[in-house]
Amino acid sequence: MKLSAIINKIEEKKSYLCLGLDTDIDRIPKHLLKHIDPVFEFNKALLDRLHSKIIAVKINTAFYEARGSLGWSSLEKTILYINNNYSDLFTIADAKRADIGNTSRMYAKAFFENMNFDSITISPYMGEDSVSEFLKYDNKYVILLALTSNNGAKDFQLPNNHFLDIITKSKKWDNSKNLMYVVGATKTSYYKKIRNIIPNNFLLIPGVGSQGGKIKDVINSSTLTSNNIIINVSRAIIYSSSKLDYLDKAEEIVDLYNKQIGL
Amino acid sequence: MKLSAIINKIEEKKSYLCLGLDTDIDRIPKHLLKHIDPVFEFNKALLDRLHSKIIAVKINTAFYEARGSLGWSSLEKTILYINNNYSDLFTIADAKRADIGNTSRMYAKAFFENMNFDSITISPYMGEDSVSEFLKYDNKYVILLALTSNNGAKDFQLPNNHFLDIITKSKKWDNSKNLMYVVGATKTSYYKKIRNIIPNNFLLIPGVGSQGGKIKDVINSSTLTSNNIIINVSRAIIYSSSKLDYLDKAEEIVDLYNKQIGL
Repeated sequence: MKLSAIINKIEEKKSYLCLGLDTDIDRIPKHLLKHIDPVFEFNKALLDRLHSKIIAVKINTAFYEARGSLGWSSLEKTILYINNNYSDLFTIADAKRADIGNTSRMYAKAFFENMNFDSITISPYMGEDSVSEFLKYDNKYVILLALTSNNGAKDFQLPNNHFLDIITKSKKWDNSKNLMYVVGATKTSYYKKIRNIIPNNFLLIPGVGSQGGKIKDVINSSTLTSNNIIINVSRAIIYSSSKLDYLDKAEEIVDLYNKQIGL
Repeated sequence: MKLSAIINKIEEKKSYLCLGLDTDIDRIPKHLLKHIDPVFEFNKALLDRLHSKIIAVKINTAFYEARGSLGWSSLEKTILYINNNYSDLFTIADAKRADIGNTSRMYAKAFFENMNFDSITISPYMGEDSVSEFLKYDNKYVILLALTSNNGAKDFQLPNNHFLDIITKSKKWDNSKNLMYVVGATKTSYYKKIRNIIPNNFLLIPGVGSQGGKIKDVINSSTLTSNNIIINVSRAIIYSSSKLDYLDKAEEIVDLYNKQIGL
């Protein structure tokens, strides 16, 4: 997907919202368990209901791997369904991968070629040559962890402004125009420093909802230099009800967040 | 697996060797392609031939994910085969995962509970609460990336001795006795500094063979304070021949490395 297409969708749909499919078979409504693949049915129903009100979908690989090859098959079916039916949605593999070059090439093959995701989240610790295999693709994006939403961000990211060093150095990498950055909704006090370095790169912002981040704070701090942001919400949308009405409740929450976004 | 069991196996088998199963279906001998699952057949044959001369097996998830749910099934079959037949081998999921707590819990479920790996490689960037879910298990180990074998280690690991800060801080985490560390065979000049902080924790040492690290340098630098090391070799063993004689060639290389180890 081209960056201009994402920007157009934000304007058209008046939303920055990304639907996070952290689908845990133990938390989905019980009536879905009669299906052959309850996880896929849950994802499909949410996509069918919400696709016109969101701009992106993030699939968290952990929840699928926890069910082994069966779970991996639910992941494959979900991304195929999105690519076939809702190709206007920007797709994110929330996989937090990265390894030495020949291994990263295999991950890129898995997520960019076989499953045709538009982007993947990547941990920066192993440096440029662990990321460059992912940056070789046209119109595919690396979403580099910068300042994450969890409490552990204080351990290695914040000391000595290490996260800013990562953002600054990564800007010099080949094809860095295809870099986006993860910055948590719980860390808005650092957004000005981040936007000073990367005024236009897309930010993927997790941490709204169950983790305590607020849409209003995010908007006020992240759109200082551009509207290039994607706000992910997972649990607060997909588990808003565990009953038959889960799609209605999920849509209510999406409408509420889009109203708070106020585009 | 208990730490004492790994130490006993090193003494008994006179080896620090870990077999790295970075199994790429495009690189295995062609005669195996007639099998339903050529990747599993390749892994099984190597394990049957080499199990008595190695102490550990490392499975690199990228090479399996690159074949989707079919590949994930080969991964599951391989670890099941090891657990059922060669339970004296220490098993490593080379997955380089880590995420916020509720997501890391899912990865721990996948690798420690469902597949019963003894250990998993983890990227430290997201801090303590991204690792702690893995450290809650008895006799299961987190192998934290410290100083990796690739060139990119110079980007964020070496500046300001950041890798030493990670080792020092992680020592204070709950259940840190279950921490091991990845240190590359290509970075032996830093081993003394590392062993000053963690004289006894196991080191997982990749980078021998295709990446240029030498067994002799590794031994001279890593066993200053203890013999608690695991040396991984992947490509240089498993792809030593692409013909019918691949098991013979692989065994020759293992014998050569074990001779160089000289226990």
